[in-house]
Amino acid sequence: MSNFEKSKRNTVKRVPKRGHYDRTTIYEVLDAALIAHVGFVVDAQPFVIPTLFGRDGDNIYLHGATKSRMIQSLEQGVPVCITVTHVDGLVLARSLFHHSANYRSAVIFGTAKLVPEKEKEAALKVISDHLIPGRWDEARLPNALELKATSILKLTIESASAKIRTGGPKDEPEDYDLPVWAGVVPFIRQLGDAIVDEDAKADLPVPESVLKMMQSV
Amino acid sequence: MSNFEKSKRNTVKRVPKRGHYDRTTIYEVLDAALIAHVGFVVDAQPFVIPTLFGRDGDNIYLHGATKSRMIQSLEQGVPVCITVTHVDGLVLARSLFHHSANYRSAVIFGTAKLVPEKEKEAALKVISDHLIPGRWDEARLPNALELKATSILKLTIESASAKIRTGGPKDEPEDYDLPVWAGVVPFIRQLGDAIVDEDAKADLPVPESVLKMMQSV
Repeated sequence: MSNFEKSKRNTVKRVPKRGHYDRTTIYEVLDAALIAHVGFVVDAQPFVIPTLFGRDGDNIYLHGATKSRMIQSLEQGVPVCITVTHVDGLVLARSLFHHSANYRSAVIFGTAKLVPEKEKEAALKVISDHLIPGRWDEARLPNALELKATSILKLTIESASAKIRTGGPKDEPEDYDLPVWAGVVPFIRQLGDAIVDEDAKADLPVPESVLKMMQSV
Repeated sequence: MSNFEKSKRNTVKRVPKRGHYDRTTIYEVLDAALIAHVGFVVDAQPFVIPTLFGRDGDNIYLHGATKSRMIQSLEQGVPVCITVTHVDGLVLARSLFHHSANYRSAVIFGTAKLVPEKEKEAALKVISDHLIPGRWDEARLPNALELKATSILKLTIESASAKIRTGGPKDEPEDYDLPVWAGVVPFIRQLGDAIVDEDAKADLPVPESVLKMMQSV
């Protein structure tokens, strides 16, 4: 897949070798995330709001209640920055200065627009498939009232980059002789056992979508 | 501890009962997080950058290379929004509309200023203690050159709120009879086994700080 063009806005300035501009890498970072942090500006004040999302090609879909501040701001077509981050571990060096984290992040720029009524259901399916693949076919579909209460925004990526750090610590040459343990403490995302709703009326098995999600992490 | 005053900026508008304004709750959400997403504006374009941080009372400390865009923007005293988010689980309802996530987030507003040279080391210790308590006493302390290459920003919280969702799904009354499994899939943060640096010269034991971190999650 092709690259996003490098510009002042998306260029990784600090530690440039950690920067990535190809769609394959950026899509992977996005698709592995459950939530995104959405940045927008209201009267010169930045807001950063966590939200669920979905992706289809270069399009990011966000949804929310029609009256939410995020939706009401973004639907005006203002500049938006969407960032997702995975922390994969803490990196312990011999010097405090070289302590770091292993991470994968993607920073996306664009403007959003409201998805028209007739495309809302397809857009919601993109978000649902992103979070829990297969769930769309198991649960009750949105009805007309529910679709009306939900606004969906589509942001086509204008510019983007990913930044990734992997591996162990890098210390100053003279520090390798210090009697200080150095290495990586990895972080792992685990799913706990599915907890059935206490108000469940029937004894239904854990659905296919959840079983698959548990196998995939 | 006292509350942050409610204003238009920090009031949780959607599902107000999930909003919290007391320092105890907001501090807890902040302190459990490894990274924050920092939002700021450059030429009307919002940027959202993930970064490590530390907290001491109402002060949030961020650090970075002196030449980074985030540092160079924030040190000018512009409005900043700092958000941390924990995703605690996915909430599966009988209807797609009522699917949700369990989460804890905190949204902080303020302006940052550079920490003067003589306070830098203490501020770095706040960040270090936040990430890996006890590590400060195990590793080599920053030297003068390293301190000079690092800028530290202090943001005193002007306004803040937390938003928290817990518990199971809430469906429409008529949907409880549907043959659809509903419940929660919890997310758990796990630490993997510490991986020693492949360039380690001596066979040192995993340090106390790491052992404690592993016990605490």
